[in-house]
Amino acid sequence: MRPTAYDLLDRVRQQKPVVHHLTNWVTIYDCAQVVKTLGASPVMAHAREEVAEMAQIASALVLNIGTLTVDFVEAMKLAAHSANKKGIPVILDVCGAGATALRDRKSLELLNEVRIDVIKGNASEVARISGESVKTRGVDVTEVSGDLVALAEKLAAQRKATVIITGKVDIATDGRQTHLVKNGHPLMTRVVGTGCMATSVIGAFAAVESDLSLAAACALACYGVAAEVAAEKAAGPASFKERLFDCLYNLDRETVDRMQRIETTQR
Amino acid sequence: MRPTAYDLLDRVRQQKPVVHHLTNWVTIYDCAQVVKTLGASPVMAHAREEVAEMAQIASALVLNIGTLTVDFVEAMKLAAHSANKKGIPVILDVCGAGATALRDRKSLELLNEVRIDVIKGNASEVARISGESVKTRGVDVTEVSGDLVALAEKLAAQRKATVIITGKVDIATDGRQTHLVKNGHPLMTRVVGTGCMATSVIGAFAAVESDLSLAAACALACYGVAAEVAAEKAAGPASFKERLFDCLYNLDRETVDRMQRIETTQR
Amino acid sequence: MRPTAYDLLDRVRQQKPVVHHLTNWVTIYDCAQVVKTLGASPVMAHAREEVAEMAQIASALVLNIGTLTVDFVEAMKLAAHSANKKGIPVILDVCGAGATALRDRKSLELLNEVRIDVIKGNASEVARISGESVKTRGVDVTEVSGDLVALAEKLAAQRKATVIITGKVDIATDGRQTHLVKNGHPLMTRVVGTGCMATSVIGAFAAVESDLSLAAACALACYGVAAEVAAEKAAGPASFKERLFDCLYNLDRETVDRMQRIETTQR
Repeated sequence: MRPTAYDLLDRVRQQKPVVHHLTNWVTIYDCAQVVKTLGASPVMAHAREEVAEMAQIASALVLNIGTLTVDFVEAMKLAAHSANKKGIPVILDVCGAGATALRDRKSLELLNEVRIDVIKGNASEVARISGESVKTRGVDVTEVSGDLVALAEKLAAQRKATVIITGKVDIATDGRQTHLVKNGHPLMTRVVGTGCMATSVIGAFAAVESDLSLAAACALACYGVAAEVAAEKAAGPASFKERLFDCLYNLDRETVDRMQRIETTQR
Repeated sequence: MRPTAYDLLDRVRQQKPVVHHLTNWVTIYDCAQVVKTLGASPVMAHAREEVAEMAQIASALVLNIGTLTVDFVEAMKLAAHSANKKGIPVILDVCGAGATALRDRKSLELLNEVRIDVIKGNASEVARISGESVKTRGVDVTEVSGDLVALAEKLAAQRKATVIITGKVDIATDGRQTHLVKNGHPLMTRVVGTGCMATSVIGAFAAVESDLSLAAACALACYGVAAEVAAEKAAGPASFKERLFDCLYNLDRETVDRMQRIETTQR
Repeated sequence: MRPTAYDLLDRVRQQKPVVHHLTNWVTIYDCAQVVKTLGASPVMAHAREEVAEMAQIASALVLNIGTLTVDFVEAMKLAAHSANKKGIPVILDVCGAGATALRDRKSLELLNEVRIDVIKGNASEVARISGESVKTRGVDVTEVSGDLVALAEKLAAQRKATVIITGKVDIATDGRQTHLVKNGHPLMTRVVGTGCMATSVIGAFAAVESDLSLAAACALACYGVAAEVAAEKAAGPASFKERLFDCLYNLDRETVDRMQRIETTQR
């Protein structure tokens, strides 16, 4: 039987995987904290001289180009090559793709030069990576016309990767199996880093489950359920964020089973 | 009729301007979050290869030398040149000026090589930039003798810029029109980043109002009112900070109109 | 009479020492905030061109290799040389030592090329620095066999430094005088940065007391007492962290005297 969202959360708590990040400097603390809150073990290391070695002690590698530089992307490639060699999943958040030519070019370099197992972004970012013509407004989400599910499935097939598009409804697909995750709360859009944290949560779940679209869907469901519970008594974005961490820490099987809304279709 | 502080906050919420930052690594998260809390859209990007392009999609540019390096200041100049070309306001926080020769030299380079529309610092930092002889103690405020308003007005005239000196009473002047803002709370001095966040709030307001000393005064009034409300039930600096974000998010016209204390004089 | 933990906290509050940091990018905000919460003055500066000058206005220097690069360690050396010349204490957090060859090599370079007054890490990190064979799992603590107190005392004697091993019981020794600190709470292990913050607290206390093992023990006792009080009403790691800062800010003599558990032995 397929594991449930809570089953995978429980695996993360039991196995405590090391999740190596080369991530956004804005949200690096929250990415580490969300992984630790899940019971896993974050490690943030970006020096060229050590990233390959650090990736060898990890069970997943999370890359995020939110505050990229040319050198930083080179370190990402070294880490990803090492992760590819070890066979651990590599998750890439194409944060801000479409905003500048540098972000587009470096996203494609990463996709072409190393094996990326999970590509994650919002609608406009993923559309840009797919070669669709959209313009990102800073790093905030932009409406994208067209069928997002079809876009995600096509990119997944092209790249032989799992593709995640986050939004009001999150999409997670490997091109054959597609999950729609209908959890979450609008206050998430008022907190910087909720997207980056989602990627880290996916990283932790991908470390314990080889069906990566399922892992990502379960990750987003648990994260979204925690957000829904957190929002109940939040007075604004900051108390919401504090409660989001506390709720994620305290998530139990009854709550996740009752509240998770994942819809799965097979090609 | 001149817009009120709340009018400008409302404009920020309606127009959701993109505010591009090259800022302090210590406080970068809070700078982004405060802009998002206002309803605007923060973008943090510092790679030489993209800063000019990113500034083109922004409505204001915020620079902060709090954790400067030589390379980082070069990226600031590229971003500022682009912002100048587009005609969007450039706000410079001279964080830590006076503490080291590097900070003094780089502050002056920025002031001399690009157009800085708003110069912002505490009393000792701004005094230093003006050529006054003071010594900053780390990045924390030091008493400065002399008439701070006169100092600000003189620097504004010299640099043809708006000058902001934050403190118990904030000063915002373009050399002709001077606003004193008497909002705020002493707990702000116990939270790292309240000064940097003030600069980001000014950036968001400057993006929607071309009278920059008015924009800055209104920004500081809204921010200070939120701090006063936040302090009411705070148990210490951390609960104060959480409440500051929540209060800023929830600010309404009645509260701002009733509590804002801006005094304006014309030359 | 020997000062108590609260006596030293009170000195920090009165003297407000400047604590210069070259620290971990993940936890840099919290390191600054914890120092400010104590009533001291944090300064974070890492540019090669200014670190030596900045160290001259400080009363303690805190180094942390958690997100090291080769260049960053070079800046640490410049800062430490300056601190050594001024005679202020230099505290080194060997964060992540044992995880990669780079961390081991750079830790030893720092220990050999500049004077490090306080070496601080968890059991596996300090064991690694001592030449013991252990493997760090990311930056999280690993069990280490053997007598940790003996390990700390031996390293202290070898390096003529104060050695701190943090854990369920913290050890602070200069090789002759050894303090065991039995304060703290398990929730600290669920919050990213509690170890880095401990180092910053030690830095602030070391700035006001020349008996460095005593300063460190008192620092860890105050920090641990605040954590115990904070944990009482915490709903999870995020509310715990908020309360930790608030409790540290509000610590009074009665609470610290009643709750502090420092056991001291003399060789």
